[in-house]
Parts: sequence; structure tokens; C-alpha cells
Amino acid sequence: MNTITIRFLPSGKTVAAHIGDNLLQIALDAGVHINASCGGSGTCGKCKVIVQEGELSHEASALLSDDEYQSGIRLACRAALTNDVTVAVPSGSLKDIAGAPVPRSVPHAARRISQQFAEEVMRAASDPPARKVHLKLSPPRSDDNISDMERVRRGLRRDYGIRDVQFGLPLVKQLPRLLRASKFTVTGALVDDGCMRITALESGDTTSTQCALALDIGTTSLWGRLIDITSKRILTEASAYNPQIPYGDDIISRIIFSQRQDGLAKLQTAISSGVLQLINELLAATGRTAYDIAYIAAAGNTVMTHTLLGIDPTYIREAPYVPAANTMPLVTGADLGWNIVGHAPVRCLPCPASYVGGDIVAGVLSSGMHRSNALTLYIDIGTNGEIVLGNKDWLMAAACSAGPAFEGGGLCCGMRAVPGAIEGFSIDDETLEPMVVTIDRAVAQGICGSGAINILAECMRTGLVDRSGRLNDIRDSKRMRRTDNGLEYVLVFAEDTGAPHDIVLREADIENLIRAKAAMFAGYHCLLEKAGLGFHDIEQVIIAGAFGDYIDVEKAIAIGLLPDIPRERYVFIGNGSLLGAQLVSLSRALLDEAMSIAGKITTIELSDDRSFTDKYIAGLFLPHTHIDLFPTVRAWIGAS
Amino acid sequence: MNTITIRFLPSGKTVAAHIGDNLLQIALDAGVHINASCGGSGTCGKCKVIVQEGELSHEASALLSDDEYQSGIRLACRAALTNDVTVAVPSGSLKDIAGAPVPRSVPHAARRISQQFAEEVMRAASDPPARKVHLKLSPPRSDDNISDMERVRRGLRRDYGIRDVQFGLPLVKQLPRLLRASKFTVTGALVDDGCMRITALESGDTTSTQCALALDIGTTSLWGRLIDITSKRILTEASAYNPQIPYGDDIISRIIFSQRQDGLAKLQTAISSGVLQLINELLAATGRTAYDIAYIAAAGNTVMTHTLLGIDPTYIREAPYVPAANTMPLVTGADLGWNIVGHAPVRCLPCPASYVGGDIVAGVLSSGMHRSNALTLYIDIGTNGEIVLGNKDWLMAAACSAGPAFEGGGLCCGMRAVPGAIEGFSIDDETLEPMVVTIDRAVAQGICGSGAINILAECMRTGLVDRSGRLNDIRDSKRMRRTDNGLEYVLVFAEDTGAPHDIVLREADIENLIRAKAAMFAGYHCLLEKAGLGFHDIEQVIIAGAFGDYIDVEKAIAIGLLPDIPRERYVFIGNGSLLGAQLVSLSRALLDEAMSIAGKITTIELSDDRSFTDKYIAGLFLPHTHIDLFPTVRAWIGAS
Repeated sequence: MNTITIRFLPSGKTVAAHIGDNLLQIALDAGVHINASCGGSGTCGKCKVIVQEGELSHEASALLSDDEYQSGIRLACRAALTNDVTVAVPSGSLKDIAGAPVPRSVPHAARRISQQFAEEVMRAASDPPARKVHLKLSPPRSDDNISDMERVRRGLRRDYGIRDVQFGLPLVKQLPRLLRASKFTVTGALVDDGCMRITALESGDTTSTQCALALDIGTTSLWGRLIDITSKRILTEASAYNPQIPYGDDIISRIIFSQRQDGLAKLQTAISSGVLQLINELLAATGRTAYDIAYIAAAGNTVMTHTLLGIDPTYIREAPYVPAANTMPLVTGADLGWNIVGHAPVRCLPCPASYVGGDIVAGVLSSGMHRSNALTLYIDIGTNGEIVLGNKDWLMAAACSAGPAFEGGGLCCGMRAVPGAIEGFSIDDETLEPMVVTIDRAVAQGICGSGAINILAECMRTGLVDRSGRLNDIRDSKRMRRTDNGLEYVLVFAEDTGAPHDIVLREADIENLIRAKAAMFAGYHCLLEKAGLGFHDIEQVIIAGAFGDYIDVEKAIAIGLLPDIPRERYVFIGNGSLLGAQLVSLSRALLDEAMSIAGKITTIELSDDRSFTDKYIAGLFLPHTHIDLFPTVRAWIGAS
Repeated sequence: MNTITIRFLPSGKTVAAHIGDNLLQIALDAGVHINASCGGSGTCGKCKVIVQEGELSHEASALLSDDEYQSGIRLACRAALTNDVTVAVPSGSLKDIAGAPVPRSVPHAARRISQQFAEEVMRAASDPPARKVHLKLSPPRSDDNISDMERVRRGLRRDYGIRDVQFGLPLVKQLPRLLRASKFTVTGALVDDGCMRITALESGDTTSTQCALALDIGTTSLWGRLIDITSKRILTEASAYNPQIPYGDDIISRIIFSQRQDGLAKLQTAISSGVLQLINELLAATGRTAYDIAYIAAAGNTVMTHTLLGIDPTYIREAPYVPAANTMPLVTGADLGWNIVGHAPVRCLPCPASYVGGDIVAGVLSSGMHRSNALTLYIDIGTNGEIVLGNKDWLMAAACSAGPAFEGGGLCCGMRAVPGAIEGFSIDDETLEPMVVTIDRAVAQGICGSGAINILAECMRTGLVDRSGRLNDIRDSKRMRRTDNGLEYVLVFAEDTGAPHDIVLREADIENLIRAKAAMFAGYHCLLEKAGLGFHDIEQVIIAGAFGDYIDVEKAIAIGLLPDIPRERYVFIGNGSLLGAQLVSLSRALLDEAMSIAGKITTIELSDDRSFTDKYIAGLFLPHTHIDLFPTVRAWIGAS
């Protein structure tokens, strides 16, 4: 792609971009504020800029008059780059924050750097736990009348050198009719989980359509990814809220619910329905059939793993916090009532402890930190926040209940990170007018987790929020208003988007965000202390979590969610749990590696830890009671 | 036991017996004919004898007048031996057959000789495929909060050195509650079938009650035997007709039925109901609970094994005669719908070929012929007659459809070998009055297989039946009569027993018996011919089958069912299929040995064999068309 240059006036700030890039997004990334209230969907008409040199490809908009258009005025959110261009941001709505000592986005190129490890091991893997093999068997004759099962066994041995394959009863029952209907030309699905088993037989040659399903079973969100086993290519992925949410926001409330009459069954049914919906979505998107799914690997925290399998999680919650099992039996879809994939083996990743689950093991596996010399802090920011500290020699893990704020829950206008969720954000210091950019620049509908961090940081920067999390009651701003729910800052007026409600940030939302970030920060602080280390000993921070990809490290440091250490030490892995499940679904050796990680992790219980409580309370401030821990933020907010 | 002497007059025949022995039975065994029509139940009053010296313990009977009793007259069937005694059998009903060149019973002591092998290997076995172990686990503490599953694993490792135990999902689901309800003192049921699995956990120490269930799944009869795993002692056994019988008498008709709508499901349901009834009977007799059953081993022919597991047997019947599987997957009771023993692993013995099944493998295993130097002929006489020829170097097997006559089926008054079935039999040459002795001397109800052989041989001896199987129409005997069903000989008049019907032998019954014995004899003849051997090369004949224990070899030779070779070469193993299942239920190594036997057997298909058909037709004569094959019988019946 050809690089083109865009210059913003009056600041003169110049950045490189690509043909087709969206002007509003480029401005946001460059730290150039342009008022925008609808999220970039072209409905509020506020993001007007004036083309001074060059031109922009521009969609028609009723919000621009002919005169305006003739004058070179364009809506930034509707404008795509075609050539070098110079645009002026009209006075009053213009705020170039480039020069200020403010948070800077980590360049996109630095993101997902840790996935390099996962991609390498995946490319090298040649030992899928499940695979399909094509068998052209000779039909029985009077001088060759071995049983149908022996015929299949012989084919596996002769053609693929596979011995000692076990057959389950349901498959044996299908054998006689299937072999004859297929004229003895079949495809066998094999799974190797300690011993080799054949899990399904299909007529003809279906080896080209075999795929694996990786699942991340989060407390709030479910993610599924379909991978072609042969090419190891990701076919598609999808996500949904965990349908258990009505039964409780976090794992503790889910455990409590499980103890009710039929509670566990309801939790299992809910999660199953969510998984099946995901599967149907993935299949519809790819044109694959359920039968193509040869293996399912699922990573979830210990409570999610228990409820997925219908195992009582009661004693996870009661001291001394004992799960029923760490290593789950290999089951089939049928065992879980997932009838469309009843044939498929389902492997849950091992859960080392009650509050350190298969999601963390999967994340560590996919990050490669267990093979690295560098002291690494692995952070999975979610409803159940999880932290691992260590390297190839040792691993120490803890969990802390951050609540759902970072997944968009617990905020009055929270939502998942889907199109329409506010993610990019800045505030004009003078007018307090916001620049709101949503995912896919769809009409703004709410605030996702990464957006909430950006909004909170920007509110801190502009003084709209003080260090204790209170909103500043600026009487002359129409965007700051007092309601029955207390003070709130209006990000998006309903009239700008045609939505029924305004999108606002309330003090209660800020409190939830502060509690969540305080829990996370106290968690890594504790682990470091137990290892006799400090923040500056950390050589690498790996940010995982469904929204890790979108988090702005500068702003996350600004609010005290991430430690204030050199920014280049931060790398991103995206959904490490999903990625780890993907690795396990493609390689026996990587499953063994996951088992060994689970065995190696030392778990630290934070809930009973006095030091954790002290650190948590100290974290209930922006960025932190001990501002010394955040030297660059202190400089920026001018705190003493 | 003290031996006492009994002398019969007028023959003067003297035999040894024991205190408490029944006089009628002793007379039958000694070849002393005493008229007896009711089976020995004391209802016909015909078996009168006169005590000449000594005395007999005698039950009161309304059929003896005071005068008769004072004269020393006793009913033989009601009399027990107490001391040396001399009894006279009254003229007219007396027939001493001791001096005649007639069949002699094999002494009881010679019976079951082959079980010595089974008993030895069983005593030596110390590797049960299932066993229970008691675990006293320490409850979780905050410094020892491994998962419940790991706690059980650790206990197995520490206390028993058992590693790598697999847990199924249903068990994991029970773990948390069970461990706590039992205060962490439990008994685990383990099964080792390639890999070690734990199949059940119970509260407390239940190791003393663990038992194994051996099943013989016959086409006509089901047998079950409960064995204490620790002591290897047989607790009890029971049998029942196979409830599949209404769907067809033999395996071919069962296969045909299986092809109907829901046919296979009906067959499986029927056999399951039969097995469950047996289990309930065995448990009721021993006071054990279903939960005590830690392992089930089932031996059956290939069709029975298929229908037991619900596997389509269709292609067993169609050339080239291919079963779905030879080696069946290990399943659980639950997989078969046997809910009371849902936890128990069920191991079917391997079936080498369509018509040589797990019953034969079990029989060979229990006979030890696969370890012997002696050329051995193993015969399992049942509805599906099975024959194995060989020694430790080679094994050759064939099956022939004998029909149900030897199991009491296909006879108008046939019944299973249970109390009331006529087994002992002789005829007074002059009066044609029979001596009928039933199993347990219960009121005569019908004829069992071994009884039918004895009756047919006795009818041959007395000329009541000619060599082609026709009854001799003796006009002046009330016991020989012509009816709508042709000629029949009355064994028991209803009036002698109070039963609603007479018990008779018809010409049609004789035809069925002749067809059955002809099929068996042609079978061993064919196998010997294929091995280039003759009848006199056989060093050992092992008679198996549920009724093998009761068969009278002389009489079986007389009718042409068994080869006419020196009698000392005959040994008896009883139900070899059940015994083999018992061995497999007690030792992993013996299961491996059964697998190796199955792999070693060469199967000969008789149904397509012209030579078999010729030999079968030649066998449709008493004892055989080629009387040279039966030299001792020729001498006896005076045939040319």
C-alpha cells in the first residue's frame, strides 16, 4: 500500500496514512481532536473539516449544504484518504493535543506482538489431537471375511501406520450399514488423547473439510474460533455474551446460584445454549457442517469449566477453595448435550486452582512466557481478572474479582466491544465537546471496556474527574448535568444519533471502573512483592483479554490500571485464552505443554491476603494513592 | 462320609453309597431298574422295594398302607440310606440291567475333570480387571487444597502405587458431595482395561463385598454366576431362558427378526430384561447389592454378543458372513440400559468369526486345551453347537446349527434342566414300564436335553425305536399309543403326578433329536478330515454346555451324538462359556489369553461345505448310517 501524507491545520501536525483510511480515525490516532458525537456514523454532522490542499473521497451527506461542500468543507467521519491532503480543523472545535504531555497510543504495529510465538509453534505443529483419514477398503470376500471393525483397523494400519485404535460402541453400531452404503470408502475421525480412538466415520472422502473449534468460556463473554486442521488457518470467529449472566455477574454469584434447586443444571443449560449458538454462527459463516468439527478445545476459568461440564462448583467458594478437578476428563459433545457435535471430543484446558483456570493456562501457553528468560507479567483483564508472573523457571498466578466493568458491564451505558461501542475518545479542553469514535464508526450505542478507560483518562486530563473519581460540576456545560442518579457527563446526545437515550458517564460508573482497576493493580503488586520484585524488574507485560487488543496503554496507565513502566515493554496477545485453546486443538504436544504449565503454576490466594486488601484500598484513587508509583502520570496531571 | 453298602435282590448287585443318599437315585446310577413314573417325587407310589436286611430312613407316605410298611415295603424315592441294607425289587417291576451289554454311566468322579485347569489358573490369578480399594484421605486444608480428583489420585498413588487413573465425567460430578458426605473415607472401584479407570466411588469401606458377574449368553439359556473377587469363591449362580426365544429359536431366525422394524431393539431389550432378572435373582440369593458388582464378563456366540450390545447382526447371515466386530468395546452397564449396574464395566469375550463366538473362546480358555499337547476335541452342545479341534499349536473351530432339542426345546414335552425335568431313565424290557427320575426328584414336568438322550438310547436298546427313529407300534402296551400327532410313548401319566398332561416322547421329537446329533457329529467329522485326522487320533474330548455335566456319555455315543472312542478320553467341563467368563472376570492376564485364543482360531465354515452336508445326511440314522464308526454300539444293538 502506498503511504500518503496528511497534514492537520492549524497545528501543522503531519502523519502518514494509507489510501482508503478514514480521516476521523486518523485524527484520533494522531491525537488531533475533532468534535464528533455520534461515534463516526455520519449522523451528528459535527466533525466538519476544511480541505486546504489536495482532496478527499467523500460520501454524500444531507448534513453538508452545497455551499459548504463547494467551500471544501467535509465530514471527517465520511471522508477517506486518496492522496496527500491538508485539512483545517475549524476553530472552536479544534484541539491539537499532540504537543501536550499526554497519553500516546501504542503504535498499532506493536500490538499482538506476542502472537508471533503462537503462530510459530502452530506452524511447526504436526500432531493434531484429532484428524480425519480417508480409507478405501476392499469389500469382504469369502477368503477375506474379517469383521467390519478389523477391516477398518487394517486400513488404518496399512495406509497410515496407526495401531491399537479403540472403537466406541455407538460407532460399532453404525459400522455395518455405513461401510456398505459407502461401498467401503470412508473417512475416519481419529482422536489421540493418550490412547488413539476413532470417534466418527463418514461416507466418502471428507478429509478436506476437517476443522477444530477453539472456545473461550468467559464469565461474561463466549468466544469461538473455527480453524481448518489441515491448513491451520482461522476460518472465522464469533462471540456472544455468556447466557449465564442473568444468574449472576461474576463467578461467586454463579456459584451461589448453582447451589439452588436445579441451579447447576440451569447454568449448564445456559452455557450450552450459548456455545451452540456460537457454533451455529461459525458454521453459517463458513458453510461448514457440524460434522466437520473434529475436535473442540475449551478454555475457561475453573468455575466456568465446572459449570460447562455440569460439575458442582460449591467448594471452590468455601475455604480452603477446592475444585472438584483440575484436569477434566475428555468428553464428547454428546456428554454435554451438544447433539449437533455429539461425535466431537471436547477437551477442557486444565485448571490449576479454584481461581486460576484453563483460560490462564491457555494464555500462558499462547504467550510463550513459560519458555522465556524474561520476567513477564501476564494480565488477563476481564470480569475475573487473572495475573501470572514468572518466566521459564517459575510461574506464580493469582486471580482477583475485577467485576464486569472492563467488559462493558456495570456501566449504565456499557456494552460489549461490537460495532457502535464508543472506543476512541477525546475532549476539547475549552468547549468540553467530545470526539467520539465507535467501533466500525457505527452509530454510537454505548461504551465498551477499552472506551471506558479512554474516557476516564480523558476526563482526568481535562479535570472533569478528580483523583477520587468525582465529576467536576461545571455549571455552564450542557454536557455536565445533575440527575436523580447524581452527576453525569453526556458523551452522546440522543438527538445526534436518533437513539432513544443519551449516552452518559456517571459517577457510579467511575466508581466501578476504579474498583476494577484497583483490584487488578493490587493483584500484580502482591505477586511482585511475594517474589521479592518491584515493578521495574518486569521485562515484559503481556496484555490479554478479549479487549486487550483495543486497550490504550497510556490511558490505562493514566487511570492506574497498568504499571507505569517503559511503554515498549508492553505487548498484546488479544484473547490469549482463545488462542491457547486454538493451539491445544491443533497439537498433542501443546496440550501436554498446557498440562505441564498447569502443574508448574504456584497459586497465590489473594482473597484472604491482608496485604492485598491494603493495596486494593490504596488503589481506589486516580491513578493511585501512592502517586510515586506513577511518575509519568504525576507529571502529566500535575499532582503533587 | 462313611461308606455304606447296599445290596439289590434278586440280582445280588452290590454298590457303595453314603449315608443320606436317595435309594431311587442309587438304583438308577447302579443300573437297577425300579418302576417309577412320577420322577421320584413320591406321588405315583410305583417304586416299591422290600427291605430284607438293615433299614432305611423313610418319609411318611399315604401311598403305603400300615400293612405294607410293617412288611418292610418302602418307596425307593422316599428312602434315604442310613446303614448297610439289602433291598428286594419286587418281581415284574424289577430289571437289573447291570449284566447287559448296555451303556454305563461315566462315574461321577470323572466329571468336571477339566475344571481342574480353570481352578488352578484362577487360584494363581492375582490381577483382577476390576477391584475395589479403600482410601482414607485427609480432608483439604488451606495448605493442602488440591482438587478432589487430585486428592483421590494421590491416595491411589500413595496407598496402592496406582498411577494415571482416568476419571469419567459422571464420577467427577459425584466427587465433591461424596467425599464430604463420607468424611473423605471412600472405596474406589477400579477397572484396568488397557488403561486404569476409576468407575465408582462409595462411602466408607466396601472392599469386602466386591464381586464379579460372569454371564453366559446362550441362544436358548442365560446363565449368571456371582463371584467374590477377593476370595474367588462362587457365591451363587442362576439361569433362565433367553427372553429372545419368542423372536426365533436359533441365531438365524434371530438375525432375520433383527432386520424388522425395531427388531434389533426388541432383541436387545429382551436379552437385557433376561440379564437383569438374573442379576436380581443372584443378588437376592446372596444379599449383595448391585453396587457390589465391580465387573461383568459376558460370553456369547457372535450373534448373541451383537444383539446384547445392540449391534446389527445382518451381515453375519449373508455370505461372506462378516460380523460388525470381533473384539467388542468395553462398555458400562449404563451403555446397555442396565441401570442397576450402570457403573459396572461390561467386557464381552472376543468373537473370532460369525459362527464361532465368545462362548467358544471362553470354553477353550477354561478347558486349557490351548496350553495342552494332547489333540483335543472341544464340544459345546447347545442350540448353536460349537466344536473346536486342536492343541497348544493350532486351533480349528466350526459351528453347526443343532437346534434347541438338547436344551429341551423342539420337544413336545421339553424343558430346561431344572427340578422336575426327567433326566434318569430306564425301561423294563418286559413290561415297558419306565423308571423316571427327575432332577431333585421333584414332580415330573417334562424332559430336559440330557434326559432326552437317555430316553432315546433306552428306547433304542429296548427296540421301542428303530434305527431310522420310528417308534415301534406295540399294540398291547398302554404306554405306546397313536394320536393325531402320530405314535407317542408315554413316560409319565398325568394321573401319577396330578399334572394336567401326560409326558410323552413323539416321533417328531425323535426326528429333532436325530437332526441335532447328526449336525454335531458331522461337524467334528469334518474338522478331523480337514486336519487329516481320524476319530481315534483324538486324545481328549471335552464336553461343555450347560447340560454337559449331566450327559451320559454311553448313551450319547449310543444315539450317535458322540464318537465311539475309549470312554476314559471323555472329560466334562460343565458350562465352559460361563467358566471362561468367570476366569476373564478375575484376571487381566486371562483376558489377554482369551484375546490370543480368538486370534489363533482358524474358522471353518460348514454351511457351504458339501462334505458337511453328506456327513449330516449319513448321520440321520441311529447311531449312524456307517455303523462301522460305532463298533461298541453295533455290538450292543446287534446291528449288522
